[in-house]
Amino acid sequence: MQRYFMLDQPAGPASLTLPKEAAHHLVTVMRARVGSQLELVLADHRAYQATVTSLEPATVTLGPALSSDPELPVAVTLACGLPKTKEKPELIVQKGTELGARRIVFFESQRSVSHWDSKKAAKKLARLEKIAAGAAEQSHRTWIPEVAYLPNLAAVLEEAADCRLVAWEESAKQGEVAALAARLGQLSAGDRLMAIFGPEGGLTEAEVAQMTAAGVTPVGLGPRILRTETAPLYLLAAVSYQLELLRG
Amino acid sequence: MQRYFMLDQPAGPASLTLPKEAAHHLVTVMRARVGSQLELVLADHRAYQATVTSLEPATVTLGPALSSDPELPVAVTLACGLPKTKEKPELIVQKGTELGARRIVFFESQRSVSHWDSKKAAKKLARLEKIAAGAAEQSHRTWIPEVAYLPNLAAVLEEAADCRLVAWEESAKQGEVAALAARLGQLSAGDRLMAIFGPEGGLTEAEVAQMTAAGVTPVGLGPRILRTETAPLYLLAAVSYQLELLRG
Repeated sequence: MQRYFMLDQPAGPASLTLPKEAAHHLVTVMRARVGSQLELVLADHRAYQATVTSLEPATVTLGPALSSDPELPVAVTLACGLPKTKEKPELIVQKGTELGARRIVFFESQRSVSHWDSKKAAKKLARLEKIAAGAAEQSHRTWIPEVAYLPNLAAVLEEAADCRLVAWEESAKQGEVAALAARLGQLSAGDRLMAIFGPEGGLTEAEVAQMTAAGVTPVGLGPRILRTETAPLYLLAAVSYQLELLRG
Repeated sequence: MQRYFMLDQPAGPASLTLPKEAAHHLVTVMRARVGSQLELVLADHRAYQATVTSLEPATVTLGPALSSDPELPVAVTLACGLPKTKEKPELIVQKGTELGARRIVFFESQRSVSHWDSKKAAKKLARLEKIAAGAAEQSHRTWIPEVAYLPNLAAVLEEAADCRLVAWEESAKQGEVAALAARLGQLSAGDRLMAIFGPEGGLTEAEVAQMTAAGVTPVGLGPRILRTETAPLYLLAAVSYQLELLRG
């Protein structure tokens, strides 16, 4: 079922006219007709059944809200050291959205090769937000992850969280296997989890020391070396497996 | 540490000359010198420390085998309905290798839009095998996953396995959450796990019926709709989390 976001639209009215971009997609790309079914996510972050009642302009009547909740029980922020290539942030945002991230932050890490000035950051974030919105529709989310850019690790550590983890390959190399499962096992529904990842060259010892001093737990993600864009996807799948499938 | 595969080289000799491609990479790309350290995976699928003793030809003395084992405790085969685009099989192979797959099979599913004739399959597989080898080196595996193409689901179901799962979104829609954890919890080290995934349009009811008749267990991967290339990565992360981190 096709899904669109109208997050500035409060729930309540029985009938809605779709915004231009959704209307174009529904009518021209999906070739909807009067009577076609779709789903709309409104400002209350719930998905509603909807039925097309006219095409010009594209108007729908709203049905009941869907009872299923596609969101992870904890709000996960991925904080990723800025990768070298354009493709990696895009992959992290697209796949991270599918796998349930609530917020995705890129920060300039000591070993980051790329740098975004404010003009470049605005352009990059606009494109990443579009990718997040598309992936959120396709994966049937009710939240579009926020995408942000922070100048350094200190700014990341100022963000509020109930649990903070850093994926550290030295942790994995030392054969540490229990920390991730222990921390995920302590989470309650509604908690905010922040997970921090290095760029291609990894985190520096100084950055890891800065994080452990701030109470961030180093965790291993198994014995294989994961690329910078793969580790966040492993983390999100582990959160889902632990909190949705094992505990579900 | 740079790692190369020499899988046709039995362990034993104290000194080895590297094959041409590895020698070029080590000397020209990595700018190794006499005394540089590296790791070699030999025919016994163990990684050995090695030290460069000459550059022309590139020759090393072998040190002891590393004690760490980077392989998943179960041998996972991913069987993926052939996706539409060139990029998706490549992403599945690269990320699936990092995440520990032992064998990756693409098969022509009823809703597959792409078709590989034998000439095209040979070309595609050669490229995918190269991607698997590169990812295996980078992620410090001791096995390079096999990549294969099978004409249909029946051929997939003829392959031997101790446990067979199919990721089925209807299973997730019906709120089924326990099956994956239950099946992974029953696995023992050395078991062969086959996990089957549909192409973009999903599996047909007939294919799912064919699989359940053959004893394959439908499992949900959480409440979000995952793209065809994302579901195998979730599965591998869940296997690692369950068998390496929770049980480790």
